[in-house]
Amino acid sequence: MAEIADIGRDPVRGGYSRHLLDDADLALRAWFRSSAAALGLEVEQDGNGNLWAWWGPRAAGAIATGSHLDSVPGGGAYDGPLGVASALEAVAQLQASGFEPVRPIVVVAFGEEEGSRFGLPCFGSRLMVGASDPAVVLARADRDGVTLEEAWRGAGLDPATVGADPSRVAELTAFVELHVEQGVDLEHREMPLAVASAIIPHGRWRLTVDGEGNHAGTTPMVGRHDPVVALAEVILAVRDTAVAAGPGARATIGRVAVTPNGTNVIASRAEAWLDIRAAADDDVRAQLADTLARAEMLVTAEGCTLTVVEESFSPIVTFDETLTDRIAGVLGGVPAIPTGAGHDAGILAPHVPSAMIFVRNPTGVSHAPGEGARDEDCEAGAAALADVLRELAS
Amino acid sequence: MAEIADIGRDPVRGGYSRHLLDDADLALRAWFRSSAAALGLEVEQDGNGNLWAWWGPRAAGAIATGSHLDSVPGGGAYDGPLGVASALEAVAQLQASGFEPVRPIVVVAFGEEEGSRFGLPCFGSRLMVGASDPAVVLARADRDGVTLEEAWRGAGLDPATVGADPSRVAELTAFVELHVEQGVDLEHREMPLAVASAIIPHGRWRLTVDGEGNHAGTTPMVGRHDPVVALAEVILAVRDTAVAAGPGARATIGRVAVTPNGTNVIASRAEAWLDIRAAADDDVRAQLADTLARAEMLVTAEGCTLTVVEESFSPIVTFDETLTDRIAGVLGGVPAIPTGAGHDAGILAPHVPSAMIFVRNPTGVSHAPGEGARDEDCEAGAAALADVLRELAS
Repeated sequence: MAEIADIGRDPVRGGYSRHLLDDADLALRAWFRSSAAALGLEVEQDGNGNLWAWWGPRAAGAIATGSHLDSVPGGGAYDGPLGVASALEAVAQLQASGFEPVRPIVVVAFGEEEGSRFGLPCFGSRLMVGASDPAVVLARADRDGVTLEEAWRGAGLDPATVGADPSRVAELTAFVELHVEQGVDLEHREMPLAVASAIIPHGRWRLTVDGEGNHAGTTPMVGRHDPVVALAEVILAVRDTAVAAGPGARATIGRVAVTPNGTNVIASRAEAWLDIRAAADDDVRAQLADTLARAEMLVTAEGCTLTVVEESFSPIVTFDETLTDRIAGVLGGVPAIPTGAGHDAGILAPHVPSAMIFVRNPTGVSHAPGEGARDEDCEAGAAALADVLRELAS
Repeated sequence: MAEIADIGRDPVRGGYSRHLLDDADLALRAWFRSSAAALGLEVEQDGNGNLWAWWGPRAAGAIATGSHLDSVPGGGAYDGPLGVASALEAVAQLQASGFEPVRPIVVVAFGEEEGSRFGLPCFGSRLMVGASDPAVVLARADRDGVTLEEAWRGAGLDPATVGADPSRVAELTAFVELHVEQGVDLEHREMPLAVASAIIPHGRWRLTVDGEGNHAGTTPMVGRHDPVVALAEVILAVRDTAVAAGPGARATIGRVAVTPNGTNVIASRAEAWLDIRAAADDDVRAQLADTLARAEMLVTAEGCTLTVVEESFSPIVTFDETLTDRIAGVLGGVPAIPTGAGHDAGILAPHVPSAMIFVRNPTGVSHAPGEGARDEDCEAGAAALADVLRELAS
């Protein structure tokens, strides 16, 4: 973790900004390649930009472990890289102990798990398992208008290789992802490690409010069709609907774009990205329906129009119970806790027996520079992962 | 106007984006120089980046006319350029008629009237009359973090020349700015032209709401300190306070910036730029005080903090009554109407007898691509300006 501590720091937001194929991402990929090579692992990049480092020849029946290297804009140091670094460290410990795996072990770094550049969370794993249409994904543009296809070609990659990779998925018999916890459950329990029971369902929608651009000084208040005002009402409705839905519900607008975004201009358009999570798929859909019904009414009352596009929907994921119980056993009976965050392990779960190990986060802060994990807990996590790999690959 | 119709089009927002020293601005400046030179005018750039084209040798007692070439982001074609083009056209018509001015006539294009790049409206005129501190202005940064000083040097200009230019101001005996109307007053009156009576006062404030960044999926709704939610409440308070203040009041938030602005991240900061205008200076201050009192309460209730910085305050401007009456007389008794928009003529008014001519705008739309003026009204405006210059320079 210390080796990559200077890669992709964000001087404006604080923390790290590491996005698919940007300079930071490329530097992290180079670090992954050299670290894996130093352990004698064979590194290859798949058609979806995921990196795989094989201990032993690539073969069926493999035990995969890893996470992702990218971050949200201004994110923390641990979300993603801790799982990759711990996987490499676990391999190093197993090698030092003289362990010889019966099944191949492969360390993976999935691309763009946060979806911060092209809006598709779990980009690399989702494409690999065939959960996203590559043609649609390649046409997505980042905030500068660069399409994924352009970025892909710019990095010397072939867009034709993007998409489902069933033979690779079929080679895996288990996937174990270690991740920093994104809440304070373990801190409250005074325990360093846990396994994951489930990932609560999660969807993202882009809300576009169109109004009437005009001069801020010459246009009377009455008769304005101001999309920023309409969006403000929507933001409050989003929050109120989630609060009313009970303690398991979450709804967030963390990203906003105003057009033309000038001080002395009533905007013509305001966009916001809505993130909803709840205990069950139907709860997310019901919360969305409530939110959009209120939003539609509020936006119409301002004389504006609302357009809604679903950018992603991730149904509830229940991790493989046998694998999870086995891991919890190896770790001495750690608790199993659900998470509100999406993970590559959640994308793989319907295709490959998958499980997660969480490392305690003292503050519970996540997706922000204040995210943290104690060194001794990180060390305990890597050692635990080594024990798990020894068990699974024997 | 046709010659510059392709300069600075904004393919994303529509309309035009022409900002201080960007490619569009430099192209417009080149067009101004060549157009003025074609009329035999002598062009010079002053220390604040304003362009002056002299008919006859530069001397005291000059009659100045012109406007600005920059736009808001995604603005219309007429706001600014119509005044510059009409001034050049008026000179051409006077020359064609054989008129020989007794006083020098000078056509001026002021820099960055909209303040869209560096946040200071009427940048060029404000610095020239000494209304802004050049050291403070040079340190201002644009949205990419480029300071004005850096941009200035990048264009081969000397930062040491920025600031008050009293000898130049003293050379002017009148300034007449022709401008497209930014409301529908003339359309309702069925008249093509008017003169300006006053510019209502105007201020800009930057509101920064700081909260607590965190994960959108793992952070319960209760206990969040979400600055986007707090800002949404502020935006509604801004609108409600302005509506309550009566028909002359305006308050707009047209520019918003969220940090880190990620879909799956509760933001840590949300900024908004507040634009308030009202009939009198005290009304603006009272409306601001009401707005900020409500905003402070709302932001605090969300567990966030509010910081307010005044970016500019422009007191009410009453144009020179003698000059305005004289112009209205030349134009055959056109009406005098107030405006809610800021203008370089408003900055010059305390220092030089100043007046404005408005050209009818069929829709009243302004600072947006839908801004317009009929060709015959633009022609009437240029001809009227020629008559006014003939009167003033004789």
